[in-house]
Amino acid sequence: MEITRRNFKESLGAVYGAVEEADFLAIDGEFSGISDGPSVSALTNGMDTPEERYAKLRKHSMDFLLFQFGLCTFRYDQAQSKYLTKSFNFYIFPKPFSRTSPDIKFICQSSSIDFLASQGFDFNKVFRSGIPYLNQDEEAQLREQYEERRNQMNGSGTPSYISPLSGKGPVNVPDEHKDFINRVVEKVEALLNNSEKTVDLEPCSGLGVFSQKERFIQVSKVDEEERRRIEQQKQEREQEELNDAVGFSRVIHAISKSGKLVVGHNMLLDVMHTIHQFYCPLSRYPFYLAFRLLDTKLMASTQPFKDLITNTSLAELEKQLKEKPFKAPKVGCSEGFQCYDTAAEQLHEAGYDAYITGLCFVSMANYLGSFLTPPRAHISARSKLIEPFYNKLFLMRVVDIPYLNISGPDLQPKRDHVLYVTFPKEWKTSDLYQLFSAFGNIQVSWIDDTSAFVSLSQLEQVQIAMNTSQYAESYRIQTYADYMQSKQKSTSKNRKWAEDGWANTTCSHMHNRSLTGKRSISPTQEDQTSDFGVADSNWSHYTKKIKTDGEVEFVVFCSFCLCSNIAFISRNQIQ
Amino acid sequence: MEITRRNFKESLGAVYGAVEEADFLAIDGEFSGISDGPSVSALTNGMDTPEERYAKLRKHSMDFLLFQFGLCTFRYDQAQSKYLTKSFNFYIFPKPFSRTSPDIKFICQSSSIDFLASQGFDFNKVFRSGIPYLNQDEEAQLREQYEERRNQMNGSGTPSYISPLSGKGPVNVPDEHKDFINRVVEKVEALLNNSEKTVDLEPCSGLGVFSQKERFIQVSKVDEEERRRIEQQKQEREQEELNDAVGFSRVIHAISKSGKLVVGHNMLLDVMHTIHQFYCPLSRYPFYLAFRLLDTKLMASTQPFKDLITNTSLAELEKQLKEKPFKAPKVGCSEGFQCYDTAAEQLHEAGYDAYITGLCFVSMANYLGSFLTPPRAHISARSKLIEPFYNKLFLMRVVDIPYLNISGPDLQPKRDHVLYVTFPKEWKTSDLYQLFSAFGNIQVSWIDDTSAFVSLSQLEQVQIAMNTSQYAESYRIQTYADYMQSKQKSTSKNRKWAEDGWANTTCSHMHNRSLTGKRSISPTQEDQTSDFGVADSNWSHYTKKIKTDGEVEFVVFCSFCLCSNIAFISRNQIQ
Repeated sequence: MEITRRNFKESLGAVYGAVEEADFLAIDGEFSGISDGPSVSALTNGMDTPEERYAKLRKHSMDFLLFQFGLCTFRYDQAQSKYLTKSFNFYIFPKPFSRTSPDIKFICQSSSIDFLASQGFDFNKVFRSGIPYLNQDEEAQLREQYEERRNQMNGSGTPSYISPLSGKGPVNVPDEHKDFINRVVEKVEALLNNSEKTVDLEPCSGLGVFSQKERFIQVSKVDEEERRRIEQQKQEREQEELNDAVGFSRVIHAISKSGKLVVGHNMLLDVMHTIHQFYCPLSRYPFYLAFRLLDTKLMASTQPFKDLITNTSLAELEKQLKEKPFKAPKVGCSEGFQCYDTAAEQLHEAGYDAYITGLCFVSMANYLGSFLTPPRAHISARSKLIEPFYNKLFLMRVVDIPYLNISGPDLQPKRDHVLYVTFPKEWKTSDLYQLFSAFGNIQVSWIDDTSAFVSLSQLEQVQIAMNTSQYAESYRIQTYADYMQSKQKSTSKNRKWAEDGWANTTCSHMHNRSLTGKRSISPTQEDQTSDFGVADSNWSHYTKKIKTDGEVEFVVFCSFCLCSNIAFISRNQIQ
Repeated sequence: MEITRRNFKESLGAVYGAVEEADFLAIDGEFSGISDGPSVSALTNGMDTPEERYAKLRKHSMDFLLFQFGLCTFRYDQAQSKYLTKSFNFYIFPKPFSRTSPDIKFICQSSSIDFLASQGFDFNKVFRSGIPYLNQDEEAQLREQYEERRNQMNGSGTPSYISPLSGKGPVNVPDEHKDFINRVVEKVEALLNNSEKTVDLEPCSGLGVFSQKERFIQVSKVDEEERRRIEQQKQEREQEELNDAVGFSRVIHAISKSGKLVVGHNMLLDVMHTIHQFYCPLSRYPFYLAFRLLDTKLMASTQPFKDLITNTSLAELEKQLKEKPFKAPKVGCSEGFQCYDTAAEQLHEAGYDAYITGLCFVSMANYLGSFLTPPRAHISARSKLIEPFYNKLFLMRVVDIPYLNISGPDLQPKRDHVLYVTFPKEWKTSDLYQLFSAFGNIQVSWIDDTSAFVSLSQLEQVQIAMNTSQYAESYRIQTYADYMQSKQKSTSKNRKWAEDGWANTTCSHMHNRSLTGKRSISPTQEDQTSDFGVADSNWSHYTKKIKTDGEVEFVVFCSFCLCSNIAFISRNQIQ
């Protein structure tokens, strides 16, 4: 269903209903650009930490506009054993709702606009009929304005406008206005004494200049009851105006309030834009989210999917997840809703992208069910099998940190083989290759014009490279650790999640520990609500009990990197 | 004629031809916004000096996109005694022409976009089919890139890519690539010895990873003649690519080169955007322009039109200039060109706005002809009668300085009755009215949240206000002169046009002087090319000789403020 400001109000009930009944929601956003600073490749440096990546996106991506929002709700119908979907494609535009309302400026990036244009994106629909929105501050401000005005009308509160002449004795009316004022006074006096209910004053503007549009003041006599009725009507109108101004943000509020799982593909920017545009300016990292999120790109890049899927781009993923060993999910569209045909590939329409993101999730979730004994064809969005993927957002192009963890500490991989190199801005990648040509294969991650990370393939060559560079004048080399330390010193506020040096512990080691029972695995979590990844005090493991037909089994995930295969432990193994 | 990148190349000849044959050109631009900083009312403060206004627009308006450019050419047809017009409506968009080309970011302002949307503006046409452009720096850079690449191909110049292994002795091919390399060498060796002309190498990428798109290198044997032919073709293709990339800027270059009078309505922003987008970043004030400009809003706000025209907005002006004492100009559209119907009012389509701007100019120019003896019905765009209006761009909302002078010093009006007031940011206009309530009528021009100019109606009250404020704690008052002096001190580079204190001379005084012959008026300028307003060494007057049917007459304008009525002096008066 396509929703613009023309049909937004009448469609809102349907949207709320769809969110309410859904098992999970899939979303997607289209933006007017990606980076207003560095090139996209520098914005997504392969050696970024999650915190750095977040800070860069917050700084360089938030002035673009999220102007199309796709929402696809998935409800599992037990009787038909299939998901019924409802797709919504919202067009968003911050149309100023009054002359005093915020006049939003947003950036467009030619390459992004050109890409969307090539996909047939309808910019006219955005700019002519986009749904407005307010963030929470703006909403509060507007509400305050209305209340202040209402208090003023009722004689309470402080009036926001003090007449310049108040408290200055008799008003001195300029000669040329005296006639006019006298006529007004006569008319109002006459109204008080005659049986008319209203009188129209002569048109004029506040400055005594006659208005071209012939707007004029109408004075009415009303009794107390009539006054109350008018007041009441006005309040209702104001409330409606307020709702109209909050506009699309109401949909986001409903999604957040529902507590439903929200699925997206490579969704970090979608999430950041959604918060920034419809809630409040993004805070420093880490941030709290009133959403439960799952990123299908991360899921597809993780075991057991990683080895089965060669291309995790949304369109390719959707195709691969229809083929063995996966199964195309059984879906139908709810009555009255447009059915997308995946064969038609309406990619980069947000509603369509949300739809196939949901399909990908269902395929992958169901595939996890094949590991159960007995296997299950349908795995619900509430299944503990998928909890390890909660709130871990895919990090584009980062080599050794797969995700940004919204509800826990981030991975801190060892980067002992990485060097931080600064050099003159004339240098190109080839110069770096030449510089390190004695050290075998290298990987270059550009930071800016004059610095880059260089990863050596062999750890033992780091010291040699450092020694060689000692007397160099044109360039300078630091180890990654030294670089991070000096950087952290220069950051005034630096918070650390994990202080226990776990970065020195390899993941498989931790796994072994838990599988061999050296750490306590509690089978009593079954009925507890998951707190999304914060299951274990020092974050090393994620352990869940699955109950199937009288049998109790355990799935053990590594919550740090999700790198392990799913492991099943039978009851006797853990006792 | 609507021109997008689909028909740009084939239409360029028609555009060049129209410019070449025209008597004058009218232009108009539509932008994605006005101000990325202060509100539009603060951006156009009523007390701005031309330099301040220019600096503000340069800082706060240039990151918007000029995305529609209207050009209407007017050619006077003697035989038919009417103008024949050709209208072009160009859609402009900085589509990146390659992956390494500049990825332009531009700002959109909701209110401007919403306004254009309400006028039916076609954003899809801009973003899907807009004509690209380059400024002169970008064009030069691109040309250099092509040349460098060409030199490299020819073996001269410095190669931009140095193989990382060059000069390092024998190349060490990794074992896994040896087979591949051997096969390539064998194939090329075979080609040299057999009768085939080409051989296709196996697809691969530079990193040894097989490309998905199956791109491969083809090796061909060519003789010297063939090589030259291929080289030639390549150069032609490159030149065409370069032309395509320069795109719409070529139209602006042609306009500039033509030296034709360019007419616009309230054209300061149009001119600034045109230079910024298609030439080079705007310089500091004052700037040199390779255009001869005339602003119809300024013309309409100046005598003899000022008293006859009540509303100088483009649509209203066009209507009024059809009525007495003006005459609707006789126009027709050239063959093959769309005729605009002014009754249909396609306002805010740039091509239409340019068209009616041209009509306004013709009406007003012809009206000037009615002052001649004998009167003339048609005044050409080259007539000296209109020279006083050259290169003076209308200044929105400035009370006492009507224009920004591109080719001469700006007006420096006396502002002895103006006070500069600073105050807490809670203050509103009403607080200022209250503060100055003892001093009669005031005018407030807001600068920012905590400062404003306040104009008193009576000069003698300035000192009283200054005295009264001496002990004030919450606010501070300075005279305009003091404020400007302290501001100029704080500006590191401050250039002054006029050092002769002419601001102390009233305009009417100067007029009297010249009319009474105290200053030399030279009747010999007739055959000189005008240097657009720099006619008089100390800028006080603008004197022109008009030759009509054997009679010699003079029109005297004040080139500072254009405030005088047109004066005709007969030969005997000046001798």
